[in-house]
Amino acid sequence: MVGHSEAIAELRDLLGERLSTGQSIRETHSHDEAYTTPVLPDAVAFPETTQEVSEIVKICAKHGCPIVPYGVGTSLEGHVVPIKGGLTLNMMRMNRVLDIHPDDLDAVVQPGVTRTELNEALRDTGLMFTVDPGADATMGGMAATRASGTNSVRYGTMRENVLALEVVTADGTIIRTGTRARKSSAGYDLTHLFVGSEGTLGIITELTVRLFGRPETMSAATCAFEQIDDAVQSVIVAIQSGLPMARIELIDEVQIRGLNAYNEAFDLPEMPHLFLEFHGSPNGVAEQVDLFRDIANDHNVIDFQWADMPEAHKKLWSARHNAYYAARAMRSGAVGVVTDVCVPISALAPCIAEAKARIAQAGLISPVVGHVGDGNFHLQILVDPKSTEEMAAAKNIANSLNELALKHSGTVTGEHGVGVGKLPYMAAEHGAALGVMAAIKRAMDPQNILNPGKVVPLN
Amino acid sequence: MVGHSEAIAELRDLLGERLSTGQSIRETHSHDEAYTTPVLPDAVAFPETTQEVSEIVKICAKHGCPIVPYGVGTSLEGHVVPIKGGLTLNMMRMNRVLDIHPDDLDAVVQPGVTRTELNEALRDTGLMFTVDPGADATMGGMAATRASGTNSVRYGTMRENVLALEVVTADGTIIRTGTRARKSSAGYDLTHLFVGSEGTLGIITELTVRLFGRPETMSAATCAFEQIDDAVQSVIVAIQSGLPMARIELIDEVQIRGLNAYNEAFDLPEMPHLFLEFHGSPNGVAEQVDLFRDIANDHNVIDFQWADMPEAHKKLWSARHNAYYAARAMRSGAVGVVTDVCVPISALAPCIAEAKARIAQAGLISPVVGHVGDGNFHLQILVDPKSTEEMAAAKNIANSLNELALKHSGTVTGEHGVGVGKLPYMAAEHGAALGVMAAIKRAMDPQNILNPGKVVPLN
Repeated sequence: MVGHSEAIAELRDLLGERLSTGQSIRETHSHDEAYTTPVLPDAVAFPETTQEVSEIVKICAKHGCPIVPYGVGTSLEGHVVPIKGGLTLNMMRMNRVLDIHPDDLDAVVQPGVTRTELNEALRDTGLMFTVDPGADATMGGMAATRASGTNSVRYGTMRENVLALEVVTADGTIIRTGTRARKSSAGYDLTHLFVGSEGTLGIITELTVRLFGRPETMSAATCAFEQIDDAVQSVIVAIQSGLPMARIELIDEVQIRGLNAYNEAFDLPEMPHLFLEFHGSPNGVAEQVDLFRDIANDHNVIDFQWADMPEAHKKLWSARHNAYYAARAMRSGAVGVVTDVCVPISALAPCIAEAKARIAQAGLISPVVGHVGDGNFHLQILVDPKSTEEMAAAKNIANSLNELALKHSGTVTGEHGVGVGKLPYMAAEHGAALGVMAAIKRAMDPQNILNPGKVVPLN
Repeated sequence: MVGHSEAIAELRDLLGERLSTGQSIRETHSHDEAYTTPVLPDAVAFPETTQEVSEIVKICAKHGCPIVPYGVGTSLEGHVVPIKGGLTLNMMRMNRVLDIHPDDLDAVVQPGVTRTELNEALRDTGLMFTVDPGADATMGGMAATRASGTNSVRYGTMRENVLALEVVTADGTIIRTGTRARKSSAGYDLTHLFVGSEGTLGIITELTVRLFGRPETMSAATCAFEQIDDAVQSVIVAIQSGLPMARIELIDEVQIRGLNAYNEAFDLPEMPHLFLEFHGSPNGVAEQVDLFRDIANDHNVIDFQWADMPEAHKKLWSARHNAYYAARAMRSGAVGVVTDVCVPISALAPCIAEAKARIAQAGLISPVVGHVGDGNFHLQILVDPKSTEEMAAAKNIANSLNELALKHSGTVTGEHGVGVGKLPYMAAEHGAALGVMAAIKRAMDPQNILNPGKVVPLN
């Protein structure tokens, strides 16, 4: 017997077959990719228009029924788990690219469009959408979690790339935040308030996002180092000297082993690597490459390989994007306890060293990968989910790493978000500011129906 | 007889001589640079520490006394006018650069530090703080109004350049927002909520801001065009082709006449101009210059002058920063009715053409200048403040321009903020979203003591 039956009856009248209470559909919407205990929603709705989302929210508000928006379910901290039951709002039928403004370098999309779908729609324009978390996430989900990825060091995260939003608030009101102008001083920055709010303040129903011109030249490279510290120091020097790299990713020797095993045509030396990409004019790229080569040479680079062929290029980044799956494949039956700290770049080397020491101490396997140009890196500690000992050891490492990041003026989550997993750290990271967040949540969602139990603990 | 006497008596006990009720000090704090009716605060406080700001706010909260933070008073929409009386908080004794982290490209400053003071403190680091509104405003004031300026097309506005804040909220609580990490997904983005909130949600007591490395080469240029539309079209093409210009400013023929008169050594042809700056490596700058020259040639550029000497360079930008004063000097006794619309770049040409047509129609003088790379431009309509006819005509133009911007998916204020002057347009720009802003204001400042009557109309 499902809960919230009155709300669901009314929703069925509104949506007909686009409201499902079937077991398998509810199971699909009970979890994301994190190791969080699944919880089934009471029902799943498939809205097709903003107006419909508004009507759904009004029905749920009337009955105090929780609402959890859902895209493709690739979040990594249990964001979409409906921990209080209620309705999951599957946004995948709102998946149209509504407008492309090549002259203004922006596009207007519905939340169910994925990042690769948007880039396909842009194919003939010479433009690109740059934010690229590993998964082919939806634009709505990426905005909701303030996602980033490998390109953010150059082109910014969702924070910098969402210009405007249409949002349905907790009482069903449809609002618009921001404009298509590149800047504005007209009042409170609601766009940035909704970006990263994980569905707890409103349901995103439309996004206006920035686009960039595709660079004339794109050049990729892999650099192998004997010592991980040399790789990290190269990144730090490159960032500090203002080199405008489009991507600079750290892949440690453990992850390289995983990539070699997971990708047939891959055969890199099992050492810490940097994967790089440079964008610009042919001369500009050549200049950047020379400058980076000098920096890498100063830091004992062993092997420096260029992948100028589009083919090799693609292979490289698709391997990087599959790092998560490659890592999990390294230990069969294992789950990954994923960390996501982000620190000022000066603190990157000691934090990575400390992380690797703790992994070794615990006798666990964990790749280290990172968007190191932003000071962001991930462990993916591979543990047997049936071993309470291993789980405890992994959580212990994650915990100490979060504390280390805060000590270094960093954050416990650079790009994955809070969800359920990071909730216990919000007080340590925000202190008294968490009270302000709670006041905002209460003001904007007085019944606490929007993705309740996420982002902000409300006593 | 001043109001709020109980609050003021308690504040005097706390601050001694650093609380002033003297007429001349109150008059100084009764206005900014806008043509807004001055209102005297009941008293002016000069706090020296965050703790003191917190104690002041607690006293004011107890007695329901309004508080208006004040820097150097260069705002342009009446932001600092204490329209409900109460206490003005002069932040200029909190003027220390607290920390410079050259390795992390950030600095921690108190709110009373001005942008040139920060850049002086950075002189030996090879780094720069880039946001540059014309005035030498304070960092606190610039964050509060979400200021930008000539460099924002390349380096962003205060929105992109404030990483973290310390803020005293309406009940005197001291909170910290953000971290020194370059990105974070840890909860609501309070930093961006306070940036642009004009003192209505909290008092900024410390800022962590981004720095950039000073480019190896900086090259400036002036280009004269017969037709303003050719100048604007050159900008549009340059932006659309991704040229990373550091500055690209439009100065129309009226403003050029003003600059020539105001700056002794200035003698530019009285035509619409673009003032440009390119940053990068010597080769990179040369390449950008060539590309821009091609674009300008395609758009009938008349005169193309390079100012590679640091001296000439300085002269150019100091003239640009004095444009406001140069314009006012063009008509003695005149005040300037300043507009600040910002539109998608594709709408820039028709909006500027419409503005110029309306000025001509009204028979008024008004320079047009703009940070056109961002789609932002200003009129400064010179009117005799004693002529109700001229004032009405100017306001009429401003009004129609604001409506035009909204019609083109733009904003009524690109960088000056709301203050008193833009309050009447907030409903048209934000629609139902204004209700969300009001809910946030009520939640964060339930007594409405923080700069009351600004940004959000509360019934």
